[in-house]
Formats: sequence, C-alpha cells, structure tokens
Amino acid sequence: MRAYDCIAKKRDGGELTEEEIHYMISSYVSGKIPDYQMAAFLMAVYFRGMTDRETAVMTQAVAHSGDIVDLSGIQGIKVDKHSTGGVGDKTTLIVAPVAAACGVKVAKMSGRGLGHTGGTIDKLESIPGFSTSLSKEKFIDVANRTGLSIAGQSGNLAPADKKMYALRDVTATVDSIPLIAVSIMGKKLASGSDCILLDVKTGSGAFMKTLEDSAALARCMVAIGEAAGKRTAALITNMDEPLGNYIGNALEVKEAVEVLKGGGPSDLRQLSLRLAAGMLELAGKGSAEECLKQAEEALNSGRALERFLAMVKAQGGDEECILDTDKLSAAPLRREVKAEKEGYIFHIDTEKCGIASVLLGAGRETKESALDYGAGIILKKKPGDRVARGEVMAVLFASKEELFHDAAEKFREAVEISEERPKTEKLIFGKVSQEGVELF
Amino acid sequence: MRAYDCIAKKRDGGELTEEEIHYMISSYVSGKIPDYQMAAFLMAVYFRGMTDRETAVMTQAVAHSGDIVDLSGIQGIKVDKHSTGGVGDKTTLIVAPVAAACGVKVAKMSGRGLGHTGGTIDKLESIPGFSTSLSKEKFIDVANRTGLSIAGQSGNLAPADKKMYALRDVTATVDSIPLIAVSIMGKKLASGSDCILLDVKTGSGAFMKTLEDSAALARCMVAIGEAAGKRTAALITNMDEPLGNYIGNALEVKEAVEVLKGGGPSDLRQLSLRLAAGMLELAGKGSAEECLKQAEEALNSGRALERFLAMVKAQGGDEECILDTDKLSAAPLRREVKAEKEGYIFHIDTEKCGIASVLLGAGRETKESALDYGAGIILKKKPGDRVARGEVMAVLFASKEELFHDAAEKFREAVEISEERPKTEKLIFGKVSQEGVELF
Repeated sequence: MRAYDCIAKKRDGGELTEEEIHYMISSYVSGKIPDYQMAAFLMAVYFRGMTDRETAVMTQAVAHSGDIVDLSGIQGIKVDKHSTGGVGDKTTLIVAPVAAACGVKVAKMSGRGLGHTGGTIDKLESIPGFSTSLSKEKFIDVANRTGLSIAGQSGNLAPADKKMYALRDVTATVDSIPLIAVSIMGKKLASGSDCILLDVKTGSGAFMKTLEDSAALARCMVAIGEAAGKRTAALITNMDEPLGNYIGNALEVKEAVEVLKGGGPSDLRQLSLRLAAGMLELAGKGSAEECLKQAEEALNSGRALERFLAMVKAQGGDEECILDTDKLSAAPLRREVKAEKEGYIFHIDTEKCGIASVLLGAGRETKESALDYGAGIILKKKPGDRVARGEVMAVLFASKEELFHDAAEKFREAVEISEERPKTEKLIFGKVSQEGVELF
Repeated sequence: MRAYDCIAKKRDGGELTEEEIHYMISSYVSGKIPDYQMAAFLMAVYFRGMTDRETAVMTQAVAHSGDIVDLSGIQGIKVDKHSTGGVGDKTTLIVAPVAAACGVKVAKMSGRGLGHTGGTIDKLESIPGFSTSLSKEKFIDVANRTGLSIAGQSGNLAPADKKMYALRDVTATVDSIPLIAVSIMGKKLASGSDCILLDVKTGSGAFMKTLEDSAALARCMVAIGEAAGKRTAALITNMDEPLGNYIGNALEVKEAVEVLKGGGPSDLRQLSLRLAAGMLELAGKGSAEECLKQAEEALNSGRALERFLAMVKAQGGDEECILDTDKLSAAPLRREVKAEKEGYIFHIDTEKCGIASVLLGAGRETKESALDYGAGIILKKKPGDRVARGEVMAVLFASKEELFHDAAEKFREAVEISEERPKTEKLIFGKVSQEGVELF
C-alpha cells in the first residue's frame, strides 16, 4: 500500500477502504508517511469530504493510536459530555455534578482554553489546590466516591489526533467537518465512557458560525459515536452571545457555583439542566421530560452542589473557596466599559468578546503564556438590554493597567448598539440523535 | 506574510496577489516554507485552479528562482520548441535544423526521457562523441556557427520547478493543468529564447489523454508566454499512436536522419514540417503558407541535413554515424512480435508501447538506470494497417534475452486487432495562439 495512491483516490472523490485509512493513520503516527503527504491528503479530504463509513473508521484509527482509558473500575453507567467550545461556557462545572447527583458517573477528561474559548481544566485550576493531573487509580477512585471526576488529558490519548491537528493548524485544513468530527470523537472514544452527550455551539463565538454547519458536525459526530457502540446525542446550542455573564477562569467558577447554589443567570441554568437531562436520557434514566425533572430536583435540592464540593475536596481543591467564592482569585484592577450611545445591545460578537478576555490575561496568546486566573469580564448588559449613554456595559478585570486599553477597544468593537431591538434567539436550536436531526 | 494565509486564500477560491505568489515560491526555494505547507497549497491549487494572471506570475517566479540564460550573444531571432512528450517523438532532431536552415536560431535546452516518453538529450547522446553538456560560451558559439545548438539543462535552471515537481510527484498533484503549464513555461522563460513553439501531445501516449485537456494546457501556456513578452504558439498533435515507426534512442536518430535525407515516414515528416513552419511564423518569416514552403524547401534541398551535420560535428559527435546511420549503436538481439489473429490494427495504446520500449532498456526505470542506446522497437504495422495471423507487427531490440518476455507481453497488450477498420485520425488537431484556440 502507498500513501500516494490513497491521496490520489481521495483527490478523485473515491471512498477509502478500512485498510487504507488504518494504513494512513498508523503510518503517519509511526513517521513512515511524512508530513507533506499527510498535508496533501488532508487538503484532499477538505475538498472531497468523507463518507460516514470513512469517518467512523478514521475515528477508530485515531482512538486506537494511543491508550484507550479503561473505566471498567467505575460502577454504573459512565456518561461523557463535550462542548465544541465557546465564551463563558462553564456548563461542565454544573452539568457533571447534576448528572452525578442523579446516579450516573461522569469521569471526564477535559481540555485547556484554545484561542478565544475557555477550557474546563483552566477553570478548575483556578480553585486553589485543585489538581487535574490524576493517576488512573485516583481518577477512578474519585469518580466512584463522588460520582464525578475531571482530569486533564493523559499524555498518550489519541496521539494521531495531536499530530494531525498540529499539521492541520498550519496547512489551513482545520475547517473540515469530517476532520473536526474525527478529532473530537477520536479523543472521546479513547476516553472510555459508555455514552457521549455533545454540546455543539453555533454562532459568532463558536468554531461553527452557522446552524447548517453545526447541524452537519453534530450529525457526523453522532454517527461516529453510534457506529462505535456508544449511545451518542448532541444539542445544538446558541453561542451567538456569551453564555451567562461571567467570562474568565475564577469568574466562571464563581458563576457556576452560583447556579449550583440556586441562583445565577437563567440562560446558563437552563442550558445546564437541558444538557444534564440529555446525559441522563442517554444513560436510560427515563424520558426527556422525566430526566429534566430529575436534573432540576438535583440542582434545586443542593445535591448537585454537594457532589461538586465532594469532587473539589477529593481532587485537592480548597472547599472554602467554593462555599465562599469571594475567596477565589480576583484581579486587583478593574475598568468599566461604558456605552457611547443610547439604545439596545443589538449584538455581541462573541469571538471578539472572548479575545478581549484573552487580552486581559484570562486566556493564552501562545501555548506558553501563563494565565491570570482572576482576569476576565463581567457583562452588565446582554443582547436585548437597553443602555443609556454612559451606562456601564461591562467590567473588565486584569492585573496590569496596560492590558485594559486593547481589551476595552476589542470589547467595544464586539458590541453593537442599535435603536432596533434584536429578536430573542433560542438557547437551544435542535437535537441530533441516532433518529436524526430535530430542529426546534 | 504567512504561508498559512496564502493556502487558506487559495483553498477558498481567492486569487493570490503577485506579492503572495512570489513569497510562496521564493520562501519555498529558500526552505522557509516547509514541504507540508507547499503540499497543502499545491493540493488547493489542484482543486481551485489558478487564473491566467496567477499562472503568469507564478511562472515568472519559477523562472527567476535560478539563472536566466542570456542568449544575447546569438545573432538573430532565437526560437525555442517544446514537446509535452510522447513515444517516438524525435521531431526536435528534424525541426531544429530545418528552422535553422531557414534563418532562425535554435539554441535549445532539452530534457531526458521521463516515464514512458523519450528525451532529446538521451537520443543525441546515442551519437558517439556527442556532448550535451556545453559551457555557456560553447552553446552560444555552436548556435552562431551552425544555427542550432542543443544542450542539457544547466544545474540552476528554475530550481523552484525541480523542488516543486519532486513534491508534486509524491503528493498526487502532478495532474493540474496550471501547475503543468507553470513547470514547462518556467523552464522555457528561463531558457532565454524570443519565441516559443509548443507541441502539445494528446492521446493514449501523452500526459494529456483528451483533446479538451490538451487544448486547455496549450491555451494556458500560450497565455503565460505572451504575458512574458515572448511570441508563443502551440500545435495540438496526435499522440494516440507512436510518431513514426522507430522507438528507442539510436533508432530514433536513424529515423530522423532518414527524414532529413528526404525519406522517412510521412507522419513524422509532415508534423516536423508543420512545427518548423510554426517556429518560422513566430519569428516573423511570413504567413503560415509561406513558412511551410520555406521549411519544405530547406528539407528537400538537403540544407537542413547540412545544418544537423554541422551541429553534430560542433558538439563533438561522429558525423560518420549520421552519414551512415548503420554505424550507430545497435542492440545485438532482436525478437519479432507476430499477430495472433487476422484483422486491422485498430489501436495501439501508446503509453504501453512506450513502457515496452523502456523494458527493453531504451528508457530508465529509475533515475539511476543506465540506457541501452541500441534498444527499442521498430513498428512494422501501424493503426489502419491490415495484418495476417502470424505476420510480424514489430521487431524488438535488446541486449539481454531475458528482457524480451515482459516487453513483448506489454507490446501485445498495447495492440488491439479488430475486424473493424479504425477511422483515420488527424495528425494535428488544432493550433493555439494569442488569437485563440483553432481546432481543425
């Protein structure tokens, strides 16, 4: 078998065999196929796409390129959850303890922030003492004892994805729906859970900007999961504005804990409940309606907060900071951003808003950048709200005065004020399951 | 400027600026852009194509990546000729002396055989003593004295093409019309002539199998040449059967000399005259009709043969071998291939026929293979001819008995005998000039 022939076949629109796909992936990981051949192959995939069968096979090849996490030591049904990334998206911190309180196990590997989006691992590490680097035994033990455990990805999880992603990143082949699906699901299949709930974000703050692309990605990922024998579903949710009002690592932990304590903003609360219900449904805990009720009960009763506290404690974090979130890191400096004119907040370009948060120190501009856990943004106004001229739209937090200028400018760029009132957007646009795509 | 942005722009169907194209080519040659980014770029070009402007600019960038040959030391108008490659195509050996005899200068760099096709340099080197490795001074001196000079490509001619071609060859990006045009014309522009006549082959023995693709390639190359200020035209000619009857290096010199002496097969003679006339027309020697007459007169009078002899002598070759071509290398062994049934020779798959010749030792299977100058094929029958069962269709020549088996099998595979008489194919399908494509 030759890489050349696989490239030419894909270039000409052919469907690769299982053998050919395994050859491409394993030979690339071993170094037998050089970067330049893989780059040409990936660009051909960009143009020609892949069939569901090719995508499923490639995902398996990627998953099996490294270790497959064995979660058999955890009792009960293990449900994973993945978000395609957004701004202010702290749902995992709520969803995982809610689901755990309803009797499923969430033993989840999460990622760090990427570009303008935040990452669960960075958020959790803003809790003093919290460790996301767990031994396999510890990971399983925490999940068994508290119902949930959240760790960083182990070193040898889907190394083919790591190598391919680095190449795609410099060859303009990231924006391919089947390749994105393979990348996400390759890691999910290697992570060992029984069921996978996907939160596919759509809108100005998401990697997928249109509903059409988001639905296509969701459909592709669900097909991969189901083909691999995992119960898989996806919600397509709104990322055309930041989720909740707080953006930044410690700020997001604070807002998530507010929700767990019964408060917090409605959008974050509602989406978290729907995601948790989706996880319960996959685990066979009842109908959609029944699962939503269970999730609400777990949240309202405080049982979800108890689970979260237990997990924080088990992973070495300081419980006091959760009981009183004012004890979490806070940036010493603050700057208000005021409206330059009167009107409705018509739209927030959410990617720009995320970049403003990165500029404040909440995200990494390069892989090596250190994070400022206390940095970020509190939104005082969201789309649909009315502002007077000079009224505070947001408060920015940072540790250095000089960071405010660019961040404030970027934030201003992101916000559009208009005399026109924006139409209210849905929080959840649709659901994708084995049965098909259902748009609400 | 970043390679990533140029890749993404081309991927999305954008037109690259002059600056972007020069950046891509010069940074690739210098090693600043790695193979994997160039591979992704080339695959994007494969799918998106290039505009005439992009193609012209890239060709200039390729031409200027190395030395530009300075032919100003040669008096008169310098006309180059290039064939896209075929089987039995020895026209340069006839066309160049005919054109020289009519008063234009042909100072030409040629290539070696590639794949199933032969190369002028290999053919000329089958003449004992003939040197194709000339100093710049010698090259110019020979052209001034004899009217023509044919040398191998200098080491630093269009190095960008050399590097890009090697990459395309292993990434399935060779078959792109604009990239083929850039590759050919980059070397032609660097070669320094004033006018360029292109012989674009079409059919089973050509790189372009269809008339449509051949016309597109011809149009693209003519546009590049004219944009660079060179008078450029192309003939689209038949390579659906071997040209002439002799295939192999010394065998082809022999047949070309037969034409120069007033004999030889009609197809080779006619095409050579039309190509020579095309060169004269570009050089402003008169109308198409007038130029054809001049070419015929040069051939019929023996003046073209005189020029060829003078060039052979000036480049160190043994004139005696031209005066009596039986003195050229001949392979010691011969094998007849006989028809297995009666009928018309309906078609000869010309690429397979070329491969049979390579298997006999007339071409290189790898870059390092040595050539057997005497090896090759003499066709006794061509498409349209009638054969009896057991009648000799061809004679194969080689130096080792064991080479005949595979070559004879390949040759048999190439020949289709049918009760149906094939329709006579045109020798020349069309002409492409600045004025447009004219199909006959």
